Amino acid sequence: MKPMLVFQTDFTYKEGAVMAMYGVVKSVDRTLDIIDGTHELPQYDTWSASYRLYQSMSFWPKDTIFVSVVDPGVGTSRRACVAKTKAGYYVVSPDNGSLTHVKRYMGIEEVREIDETINRLHRDDNEEVSIFAGRDLFGYCAARLASGIISFEEVGPAYPVEEIVEHEILEPTIYEDRIEGIFEINDPNFGNLWTNIPLQTFKEAGFQFGDKIHTVIYHKDEKVFDDEIYYYTSFSMAENYSVMIYNNEINKIGMAQVIGNLCTLHNLDFGPDYKVVFYKG
Amino acid sequence: MKPMLVFQTDFTYKEGAVMAMYGVVKSVDRTLDIIDGTHELPQYDTWSASYRLYQSMSFWPKDTIFVSVVDPGVGTSRRACVAKTKAGYYVVSPDNGSLTHVKRYMGIEEVREIDETINRLHRDDNEEVSIFAGRDLFGYCAARLASGIISFEEVGPAYPVEEIVEHEILEPTIYEDRIEGIFEINDPNFGNLWTNIPLQTFKEAGFQFGDKIHTVIYHKDEKVFDDEIYYYTSFSMAENYSVMIYNNEINKIGMAQVIGNLCTLHNLDFGPDYKVVFYKG
Amino acid sequence: MKPMLVFQTDFTYKEGAVMAMYGVVKSVDRTLDIIDGTHELPQYDTWSASYRLYQSMSFWPKDTIFVSVVDPGVGTSRRACVAKTKAGYYVVSPDNGSLTHVKRYMGIEEVREIDETINRLHRDDNEEVSIFAGRDLFGYCAARLASGIISFEEVGPAYPVEEIVEHEILEPTIYEDRIEGIFEINDPNFGNLWTNIPLQTFKEAGFQFGDKIHTVIYHKDEKVFDDEIYYYTSFSMAENYSVMIYNNEINKIGMAQVIGNLCTLHNLDFGPDYKVVFYKG
Repeated sequence: MKPMLVFQTDFTYKEGAVMAMYGVVKSVDRTLDIIDGTHELPQYDTWSASYRLYQSMSFWPKDTIFVSVVDPGVGTSRRACVAKTKAGYYVVSPDNGSLTHVKRYMGIEEVREIDETINRLHRDDNEEVSIFAGRDLFGYCAARLASGIISFEEVGPAYPVEEIVEHEILEPTIYEDRIEGIFEINDPNFGNLWTNIPLQTFKEAGFQFGDKIHTVIYHKDEKVFDDEIYYYTSFSMAENYSVMIYNNEINKIGMAQVIGNLCTLHNLDFGPDYKVVFYKG
Repeated sequence: MKPMLVFQTDFTYKEGAVMAMYGVVKSVDRTLDIIDGTHELPQYDTWSASYRLYQSMSFWPKDTIFVSVVDPGVGTSRRACVAKTKAGYYVVSPDNGSLTHVKRYMGIEEVREIDETINRLHRDDNEEVSIFAGRDLFGYCAARLASGIISFEEVGPAYPVEEIVEHEILEPTIYEDRIEGIFEINDPNFGNLWTNIPLQTFKEAGFQFGDKIHTVIYHKDEKVFDDEIYYYTSFSMAENYSVMIYNNEINKIGMAQVIGNLCTLHNLDFGPDYKVVFYKG
Repeated sequence: MKPMLVFQTDFTYKEGAVMAMYGVVKSVDRTLDIIDGTHELPQYDTWSASYRLYQSMSFWPKDTIFVSVVDPGVGTSRRACVAKTKAGYYVVSPDNGSLTHVKRYMGIEEVREIDETINRLHRDDNEEVSIFAGRDLFGYCAARLASGIISFEEVGPAYPVEEIVEHEILEPTIYEDRIEGIFEINDPNFGNLWTNIPLQTFKEAGFQFGDKIHTVIYHKDEKVFDDEIYYYTSFSMAENYSVMIYNNEINKIGMAQVIGNLCTLHNLDFGPDYKVVFYKG
């Protein structure tokens, strides 16, 4: 079977952009399988684009092609590229930080810049500059690759993997009496916050399920949360509306307010300005 | 052909949860047909989950598998289950009230608790507690069932249908001079409200299309609406912005404000606190 | 292969309407390919429905069937119809203005009124008036057409193409020293505004990429924007947050605030009340 195409963008479904982009894909090859990853990534947020790929990619069959279009694209000469990961996935994306986590945690074997002379849609009424890269470039090129019309080599010239644009990823630090990390992403629906502390590191620092942990959160220099909270295996162990620590779905340490929204109720968010400190017993 | 998988959750598309869940399904079997029922159910609202299944299920082919994941899951020992309806549909869901309407109005022939030792996804990096049941349990088990990897019997042990957790369903009452019901659900997009009064009952109480009906709505003990309004077969018979009574798409009595939003314009909502009374001619 | 079905509605995914409608389609024919164009069109906005079809239709394979359900339907005796375009597309829609752009710019070869006696879903529990035309009429009829159960002729009786209901489309005017148009639609996600001025007309009026253009916007009689702004081939040429002119994805002249939302930041919107004037060099 042909590889599936999984799309993630910040286009939303509020107008006709997705509809036009999918039309191009189906015009290249009617038999291609299109899946909505999401079209509601935060606008222009290449960090979230990168994180969501990382969060979900490994659950897909190995030849799946991800089309990620979050493309502030301004004032930059960002490349349009297709990256092949070590496990055999493909990502079609602007090279603008969207590949950060895939490069760091999954490994990129090879990356190619899309040759727009052959892998960009041209139509009679489209010879002039057209500004919708999601439709004419990323979607079109991905469809040609999935369909087998072009090989990975025919995407365009390879360039050094080292040149891929990356966001900085902050790692947690273990001290004698505590572990310090940041909130690196949120769950914007349920309001949970995910730290950059892997479960494995948390365990090595000496924390165990069932512990009541002194937890302090700083926004810049200001202390914004300071409480003793439980580290549970399941939300069902906590009282409603209590704040708890848990192991999230990609095996990093998260915090949640049970049946509540931790972000809005405690005025928290993610990013390097939010430091979280867990003190040892 | 293999059964289709129709998903309804409260996950939204704001982050990578749906994308990861669908990846698991497609990793079980690339050929499975995934359909978005909705991912925008009101958060933690098992009543809505139950109602939306009831509203749409009967329009699908008889072997369709519905995966419904609204799972407050807190403080409870709710079962994860697969229910088989009398008509031959399957519902994969937490047993937490989400099966209320299906059980009452469509009939459940058999229900089985998912055996997590065989029907939960385990990965090398996933041996620890993972908290995303939509992906690792409900999605994974549903895909195995749809694909034919497991039979319904292999889902896990059957338990008595009587033990299925149900919300209370209120029925309307006919009096000499009136019929009394509640608003049991809304249309959160257009703002219509649907009562618990079946068309058949309304007719038996003596109401007919074309009637102008004295209608009173109470919120708790307070009268919040009192007017004479028409009962029409079609929105096109009413003046714009007028409030009218109609027979909704599942043959229950509804109320609408034409080209308006009855809920917001009259500050109404659904639930047992909203009593609606229609007086006979 | 059977034609694909592309849906666009104003239903949203907040309740079970889409889920029920798609169930009807799959009950007609399990093998049909359903694609979400969008379910987030502005409520009751047949102009947007018309525009989004126009914006995306030509990117699809020629036999694709579009199901467009934005149906204020009030106080009118609007027809339910299937239109066949000159290029071979089909649109299943209320005839209420939703076909305006398709008729004007793509050409309609033939239009037929849906015969509800044969192309409306009837069920045992559905003999009474049912008010959900998206599910029982448009979705059902489109599925029968896509599946080959009915031919285009069997949709129902043809009626004169001239009778199709149209919104007025305003055209731009070239003067000695300027060109005047309106904003005819927006991009509600990124906040860009699209004029009714085709690229070709703009060029004929003498404007070129790279020009700094004196631009004035009027809301009714009030001047609401007056600045000299650049006409660029790409967002990447402009400074962040600057307002610029560009050639949009369907070769009309647009305006954008780079990495910003022009609509909200300058309190602008689309419609005939918004006149935009570009002055020549």
